[in-house]
Amino acid sequence: MANTFIFGHKNPDTDTITAALAASHLKNKLGQDTEPVRLGEVNKETQYALDYFKVEKPKLIDRVPTEVENVILVDHNEFQQSVENINDVKIIEVIDHHRIANFETREALYFRVEPVGCTATILKKMYEENNVEITKEIAGLLVSAIISDSLLLKSPTCTQEDVDAAHTLAEIAEINLDEYGLAMLQAGADLSDKSINDLITMDAKEFEMNGAKVEIAQVNAVDTSKVIELQPDLEQEMNATIAYKKLDLFLFVVTDILNNDSEVIALGKAKDNVEKAFDVRLENNRALLKGVVSRKKQIVTNLTDTFM
Amino acid sequence: MANTFIFGHKNPDTDTITAALAASHLKNKLGQDTEPVRLGEVNKETQYALDYFKVEKPKLIDRVPTEVENVILVDHNEFQQSVENINDVKIIEVIDHHRIANFETREALYFRVEPVGCTATILKKMYEENNVEITKEIAGLLVSAIISDSLLLKSPTCTQEDVDAAHTLAEIAEINLDEYGLAMLQAGADLSDKSINDLITMDAKEFEMNGAKVEIAQVNAVDTSKVIELQPDLEQEMNATIAYKKLDLFLFVVTDILNNDSEVIALGKAKDNVEKAFDVRLENNRALLKGVVSRKKQIVTNLTDTFM
Repeated sequence: MANTFIFGHKNPDTDTITAALAASHLKNKLGQDTEPVRLGEVNKETQYALDYFKVEKPKLIDRVPTEVENVILVDHNEFQQSVENINDVKIIEVIDHHRIANFETREALYFRVEPVGCTATILKKMYEENNVEITKEIAGLLVSAIISDSLLLKSPTCTQEDVDAAHTLAEIAEINLDEYGLAMLQAGADLSDKSINDLITMDAKEFEMNGAKVEIAQVNAVDTSKVIELQPDLEQEMNATIAYKKLDLFLFVVTDILNNDSEVIALGKAKDNVEKAFDVRLENNRALLKGVVSRKKQIVTNLTDTFM
Repeated sequence: MANTFIFGHKNPDTDTITAALAASHLKNKLGQDTEPVRLGEVNKETQYALDYFKVEKPKLIDRVPTEVENVILVDHNEFQQSVENINDVKIIEVIDHHRIANFETREALYFRVEPVGCTATILKKMYEENNVEITKEIAGLLVSAIISDSLLLKSPTCTQEDVDAAHTLAEIAEINLDEYGLAMLQAGADLSDKSINDLITMDAKEFEMNGAKVEIAQVNAVDTSKVIELQPDLEQEMNATIAYKKLDLFLFVVTDILNNDSEVIALGKAKDNVEKAFDVRLENNRALLKGVVSRKKQIVTNLTDTFM
């Protein structure tokens, strides 16, 4: 077993899985003894990238074994998003692009956070800074992460640095960025095997907005109408969740990955806030939010303002 | 007034002051609009470096004015060590070499911590990464910080990277590292205008060691005997502090910057722990700790073990 485990957050997405793989490859090239691992199942989008570039997924772990001396965290730093026994391990490095919170160590360590759209963009820079060659496979994994986190460079979280990195990496990976990107996003947007309950829980987050309890669930889709036609069943489950969790608002967001819009279903006594937040009218509890794709940068911020 | 203020911790030392000056110089070269400031008086050691390289000390502030949009923290990240209104300002970057604790932001930012002996060592690397020339003055300030934090490369906190950086910077600054370093440390070790109370409070920190309350004060001196001959007066003040703060141990450490040893005076009911921690015998409450210079890496760690 390696001396150092490298892993991303729970409920792993493409950036978390590929960042662990790439960081481990880089560190081992630099003489460290590391192994990439993961804290949950690989989703279909990530699996598409792994299959395309013929890379094995990292080993699944529940906790860091006692024999492992050190850990490196990628794509997260908040302890509640990390491995169960995070308080018992020695963190020697963090590479991330999120806000910093709930992080504390006894000693100094390597800690690198940058406000870019994707951990992969930072890792690409670290390969260059250390003069380690980015192989075709690693470039493929890193560009997949940028495509995933930025919805093919369309999300407002995407910076110029992410865009530049994506183009360079696509060249090394020998892919057509748009074609490959769309195919990968489509693989992730395959909702055919999802139950109604899966759809409203698979990527759901709860927010407190000035005292109001707001749940926002998001799914990516190629054909949003396929999801929207399930509206009666979705509403039934959403209303059950509202009653159980005492929510003021449940917003279900179906993001069209081809046109970069989102269709939303809003339920709960504060559903009018959605009309104010996006200057739209709900019809049959539904509205189209033109150009809205980012929960973090577009939905949460606008909605929060209406509760002030 | 600049758009962005850059500052180090309260009770500023040479690394904190010079890091603010150098970081501001670097950021402005890269097109940002920044100004270095400080949160307290400049000590004699730092003043020596500023005078030698003919650099003005940064402006003193109590709080960040509301007109200033952003701040960059250097040489610290814990909010209690920072400016009074730290919770009301937007932190856009942190450059530090300490443990991470009590730090939280709403959004991602540039955050760079490395486990080296000195912030100056990280700043030198950042100049190089950004291809910005290190001027003679900046090199002088940065090497002064390394000399200060490492007691002229002798402290166990000093890494190979610090050593290499110090030699490169000394060359650019056109100084003889040992001669300049000793003169600067001696300027800081001038205790002639200090009262007894100054000596035991000017660099005192309190630690909790498995329930025991331990105060450790440290001063640097060229001629330790000059301090030790004040022992009767020092003991009187130390005993008053022990009674007032209900300490189990008060350790007063006089560090010989020429020979890199420390003479200590230990008082309090747990003073025997000093004998166990360093395998020495206290005579007249005093002992010589050969090769001990670092409170963090040598004194606190060894003492803590004896309270377990």
